[in-house]
Amino acid sequence: MTSQENLRPKSIDLSHHLNTLSRSRVPSPLKDIIKYMREPGMISLAGGLPHPSLFPYHSLRVDVYTPDTLDGHGQPSDASTGLTLHSEKYGDRDRTGTDISTGLQYTTSKGSERLSSFLQKFTKDVLRPGFTDFEILLNFGNTDAWSKVVSLLCEQGDYILVEEHTYPSSQALWAPMGCRGAPVQMDKDGIIPQALEQVLGGWNEAVKGGKRPRLLYLIPVAQNPTGATLTLERKKAIYDICVKYDVVICEDDPYYFLQLPAYLPPEQRAVRIATEMTPEELLEFLVPTFLHLDWQGRVIRLETFSKTLGPGNRLGYFICNPIFAERLQRASEVMTQAPAGWSQIIVEELLCTWGQEGFLRWVTGLRDSYTVRRDWMCDSLVEFFDVVSAPEGLAADVIAYPKGRISAGKTAPVFSFSYPKGGMFLWIKLDLSQNPVYQRMKANGEANAEQKWADEFWMSMIRAKVLLVPGSYYTPILSNDQRMKQDGAVAYFRLAYSLESREDIHVGIQRMARTFDESWEFRKVHLECQ
Amino acid sequence: MTSQENLRPKSIDLSHHLNTLSRSRVPSPLKDIIKYMREPGMISLAGGLPHPSLFPYHSLRVDVYTPDTLDGHGQPSDASTGLTLHSEKYGDRDRTGTDISTGLQYTTSKGSERLSSFLQKFTKDVLRPGFTDFEILLNFGNTDAWSKVVSLLCEQGDYILVEEHTYPSSQALWAPMGCRGAPVQMDKDGIIPQALEQVLGGWNEAVKGGKRPRLLYLIPVAQNPTGATLTLERKKAIYDICVKYDVVICEDDPYYFLQLPAYLPPEQRAVRIATEMTPEELLEFLVPTFLHLDWQGRVIRLETFSKTLGPGNRLGYFICNPIFAERLQRASEVMTQAPAGWSQIIVEELLCTWGQEGFLRWVTGLRDSYTVRRDWMCDSLVEFFDVVSAPEGLAADVIAYPKGRISAGKTAPVFSFSYPKGGMFLWIKLDLSQNPVYQRMKANGEANAEQKWADEFWMSMIRAKVLLVPGSYYTPILSNDQRMKQDGAVAYFRLAYSLESREDIHVGIQRMARTFDESWEFRKVHLECQ
Repeated sequence: MTSQENLRPKSIDLSHHLNTLSRSRVPSPLKDIIKYMREPGMISLAGGLPHPSLFPYHSLRVDVYTPDTLDGHGQPSDASTGLTLHSEKYGDRDRTGTDISTGLQYTTSKGSERLSSFLQKFTKDVLRPGFTDFEILLNFGNTDAWSKVVSLLCEQGDYILVEEHTYPSSQALWAPMGCRGAPVQMDKDGIIPQALEQVLGGWNEAVKGGKRPRLLYLIPVAQNPTGATLTLERKKAIYDICVKYDVVICEDDPYYFLQLPAYLPPEQRAVRIATEMTPEELLEFLVPTFLHLDWQGRVIRLETFSKTLGPGNRLGYFICNPIFAERLQRASEVMTQAPAGWSQIIVEELLCTWGQEGFLRWVTGLRDSYTVRRDWMCDSLVEFFDVVSAPEGLAADVIAYPKGRISAGKTAPVFSFSYPKGGMFLWIKLDLSQNPVYQRMKANGEANAEQKWADEFWMSMIRAKVLLVPGSYYTPILSNDQRMKQDGAVAYFRLAYSLESREDIHVGIQRMARTFDESWEFRKVHLECQ
Repeated sequence: MTSQENLRPKSIDLSHHLNTLSRSRVPSPLKDIIKYMREPGMISLAGGLPHPSLFPYHSLRVDVYTPDTLDGHGQPSDASTGLTLHSEKYGDRDRTGTDISTGLQYTTSKGSERLSSFLQKFTKDVLRPGFTDFEILLNFGNTDAWSKVVSLLCEQGDYILVEEHTYPSSQALWAPMGCRGAPVQMDKDGIIPQALEQVLGGWNEAVKGGKRPRLLYLIPVAQNPTGATLTLERKKAIYDICVKYDVVICEDDPYYFLQLPAYLPPEQRAVRIATEMTPEELLEFLVPTFLHLDWQGRVIRLETFSKTLGPGNRLGYFICNPIFAERLQRASEVMTQAPAGWSQIIVEELLCTWGQEGFLRWVTGLRDSYTVRRDWMCDSLVEFFDVVSAPEGLAADVIAYPKGRISAGKTAPVFSFSYPKGGMFLWIKLDLSQNPVYQRMKANGEANAEQKWADEFWMSMIRAKVLLVPGSYYTPILSNDQRMKQDGAVAYFRLAYSLESREDIHVGIQRMARTFDESWEFRKVHLECQ
């Protein structure tokens, strides 16, 4: 391995991807000031910094769990509080540890060096990027990060490659800027390499009214909304295509450490999830990242603590080539400055206290907890629907029939889905072909019957007091006033198992099942059978 | 007053100021989801929120000073720790106070309702906006805020009205976007209303190659870099001109509460600064804001806690009309989300613990502390230079001569300045006309001699181990590759008194004085005199 590591190349020059805005940014002149401020004996009357003695905070104390607190049973008890992070104002500058005065002062837009060093080493050891000169740049989490990536690379009118069902906030950023989505077909394992090749290879500028896309945005693991996780083979194939067509990959990967073991029905799985996976075993289990496969530096990886340490930290970081990192730092100087000091102090102290291995043990526990939650939802689906394996070629693991109707032999399935292999979401694809309401809409010649049906069905679920997210929220935007059309008699919904209790998930799926029965007009029949 | 308050109007519709980008933003569809999530009995499988029990934090404790800690003597002692902010994970939702689980969870981009309500009331009571339907929207501080204002209003090629010496980071944002600065002349009291009228009234689209500016960016109090504070009369006149020409005012006002009493030489002032100003007296003393004068809703006020509670909070808020606030919220959804949870929790707890009056007492103490620091610097200038009142008509309070040379009668002044009436900065304007180095440069026909001289002088100060900020950093950008030319044989430097100790300020000014002597070639003479 070491010899392989030594063979890793430096990143190539991809500066031709930078947009006009990004090229035009100039370094802050204050860089010179900072350089001279550090000279020994210098008296600086330059920096416009408020005096840190005048911050009203004396000390900060955060009690945190130990990395081994999570045992996969949902939530830790108070008794498991184990560590205290402490930070205060230090008079003398030689004192090690985190100093509130420093943490709350203006810094360069790079933020804490100690935190960045930890993350640099973590990235090197754990993610093992395919190129050597990767850099770390802190940001405010992936919303901020994506906004900065678009401001780095995209021009008005540009096409951006997106997944067939894509994260709405990412589109809501670029659509008003006049960018356009170029959707890539997905199946249960995420976007299909051949489909990507088709989009890029068959690109016709005249027809499309725009250049071939040069940016691919994707969530490779436990995708939002579909829950799909790309296999290593797919990642390799997608990466090669991106090299071929000179496409930059923005790897938005908040669920990377939440890759879950395959779902097994209750009777087939052990009484409780084992929490004894070692950090080494976890890393062995995780599908390597695009960053790991990247020998050119064309991946901009977005890392966030939102799913591992809480969204309110508003803390994440870019991992990318030095040219992009430098331009992203220029953007940070004028768009945001460095992330919030409190978040930096607390996360830095936490990570340096836990250490690299401790953090990996923490995410192993998290993974167990979300496995339990995933199983709660899948168990409920199996309980309230008749779930059978999908035939070969269907883009799903299983098909769900109304409960007790499959044996009748004449009932069509109502939806298909795959057991999530990661993250927080389960995605269902409804087959409307046998739905009587839909059939009547089609018979009446309703325009856009699928959407109309989905809206009505969603409202009937709300009346039954169960709330899902309509799949239409995730439909790619082709241009500012046009969305991609879904083919066929289908509708989609996203279910999250991350937040509600076991009982609520159980009752929620039961309510959903009843709404299916009603819409498919099984209700009466079902009552008669009882 | 109450009847006057009742007469305040609602804001007028200024939506014609919104740029294409901002108009094109659409509300997040998740708004609907949130609406239904709040229905009683609803089981939500919709929100993709991580489970708050899985955040690794158990409790947060911050020890803070009492509002009366600062007695104007530089820094509080440890003994003055007085309050403990406590926040933990609460199982039951009825518990009042700040809950870490809520604070660290995803929220709407508006952030904490409790914090926003506090600030809404604070704004109403303390700043008393001139229109009734003002709104509060949290942001990450004024860098983020200004970035969002520009993304709200400005198109490529637009001119933006700026002060003759302007804050560099604000320009570094818009210049790469292809916007251009339209400078407005300043004197010791900030921008001159007649100069603003001249720029706007005399605007010639054909000559300028662009539309008349519709956005004025300014720092009205203790301006960065000049330290100038606009008088109430000027604010009124400027506001009226902005109404006349339909200009939106972006009031970037971080030093508002740091308006200081007039400088008096040591012998003329009391032994120590009185800290007994009541909140009422403070508010009486402060020059009212543009927001207060604004009866139309054309002011976007940027409030930040950077100078009052520490920059690392990365927390501030917009105060503006509802149409702008709604569009700024749309921008926040895709650019940043809500500010960091830690900052919100801590600042919310602090403000709600101190209360409105406590916060005003805190800033009164801050003001005293910066008054002391301002006096340290002014005292040193008076000690190491011969400082005399400036003649009528000069844009400065005083003129500085080399020490001990004024009596010779043949020495020209070396710089002029005004005693800061607020904030953290003192701005000096050097008169190069009698400087021998400059004279030689001019005699040799050097192009751009003033800039060349200033660069060399700055480096000689650095060699003497005193660091100032060159005034050229603040020169308005007219277009991406062109800066405003300064008239005459002048150079500018900014000195900050906010950070260094009394002794360092004293020694720093002494070193600066020596460098002046050397550059003006007084050194030898001076030695001979001894």
